[in-house]
Amino acid sequence: MNIVFIGSGNVATHLAIAFKAMGADIIQVWSKDSRNAEILAALTKAEPINQWKALDQTADCYVVAVKDDAIAEVTSHLQNVRGIVVHTSGATSIAVLKGAGIGYGVLYPLQTFSKTKAVDLKKVPFCIEADHPETLEKIAAIAHLLSESVAEVSSDQRKVLHLAAVFACNFTNHLYHLSNQLLQQHKLNFDLLKPLILETAQKIQSALPEAVQTGPAVRNDQETMNKHLALLAGSPELQDIYEMLSNSIKKTYQ
Amino acid sequence: MNIVFIGSGNVATHLAIAFKAMGADIIQVWSKDSRNAEILAALTKAEPINQWKALDQTADCYVVAVKDDAIAEVTSHLQNVRGIVVHTSGATSIAVLKGAGIGYGVLYPLQTFSKTKAVDLKKVPFCIEADHPETLEKIAAIAHLLSESVAEVSSDQRKVLHLAAVFACNFTNHLYHLSNQLLQQHKLNFDLLKPLILETAQKIQSALPEAVQTGPAVRNDQETMNKHLALLAGSPELQDIYEMLSNSIKKTYQ
Repeated sequence: MNIVFIGSGNVATHLAIAFKAMGADIIQVWSKDSRNAEILAALTKAEPINQWKALDQTADCYVVAVKDDAIAEVTSHLQNVRGIVVHTSGATSIAVLKGAGIGYGVLYPLQTFSKTKAVDLKKVPFCIEADHPETLEKIAAIAHLLSESVAEVSSDQRKVLHLAAVFACNFTNHLYHLSNQLLQQHKLNFDLLKPLILETAQKIQSALPEAVQTGPAVRNDQETMNKHLALLAGSPELQDIYEMLSNSIKKTYQ
Repeated sequence: MNIVFIGSGNVATHLAIAFKAMGADIIQVWSKDSRNAEILAALTKAEPINQWKALDQTADCYVVAVKDDAIAEVTSHLQNVRGIVVHTSGATSIAVLKGAGIGYGVLYPLQTFSKTKAVDLKKVPFCIEADHPETLEKIAAIAHLLSESVAEVSSDQRKVLHLAAVFACNFTNHLYHLSNQLLQQHKLNFDLLKPLILETAQKIQSALPEAVQTGPAVRNDQETMNKHLALLAGSPELQDIYEMLSNSIKKTYQ
């Protein structure tokens, strides 16, 4: 399996290293920034390129892992390659790849990637989609190199997944940040909250979130909620967030 | 160490079983509901009681784990006991226990407990407070039976911790629920999000939340945010939550 990576950010880095570890050959890494291409190429023993004319046309698969708004432009350079072309975006339709390679599709890993933290991809759901059943089979085989969890998901469904991930990951992380801010203001250590945060995420691995909801809002304990709002008197923004999410909880369980 | 439990809910159950496992004797479990007292008493080989006149006055420690608004009433029956009295509430001042036992204080485990899921208490922070340095030493020794993580926290600080926990745990779990609802509406399986949820919580065990924030709001990707809001057209409540949290993220990182 010969793979060319288009892009050298977080997703490209995690996927390229994982493919390499599973025995695939990363033959080239393209990036518009030649320094970034060199870093990922060095990690995966690939050739770094930043000119389209240097692109090897004969790879089995071209993985497009660039910013969403750059996918279309990149695709225009992948019309004649003799492999399949996949993008890795949650929010972008398969249609943007139209005409690319000998078949095209999506390989979307539903996970949050940071450069500094390794992620075990074996458990990460890979959402795949293709222009054709034959391409789908190829993309499924590629996805199974990395993960036990591969699901066919349409572009419309993928958009919903991406949105749901914003609620479950991005917003959640921001709530961690807001709670840390509160603690800092009162000279308390964020470490105190870490076991609670982990347990909250572990709980829903085997139970539905609505079955394990706790706190003043779900038991409609208005006295405690009033005390909390009073404590937040200096932070109108946090009061608004507190009220909106508490009301949403109350509405869910009333 | 002889302990009497006042209350038989989630917190009482987890703590009583853990104390028993560490070699303490649970001599009585009081509950206003005799059936609940019997269940926890059976689990811990204790005597179930639901009459105050049956209370053993000679235990080393009385753990009050009842609803916040019932602590004061319960405390009125613990004025003359010959042990120390602690409550386990995050939101309740130590002052509610005034005059109880031969010393009184707080033993607040900062964790979310469900009846159906075991929790390893060794890593759970126990926030303690006492009326007197001697009582504090006793409560610290009791807390260390269960956990490696024991911190002295004042009533005012504990209120802030409890509030921060609402953001980091209760609201977070509700966001899990909202994302699950979105998936269900589009016939997608919540399992797809579970690795992402776990990774998000694991990430902040060793990094600050603000250092690992991802998503459209932090990179001010208005196009994606507009697409998300359009997808939520049928759910004005989710649109409001989406906008409020996205604005809060934008404000944090601008």
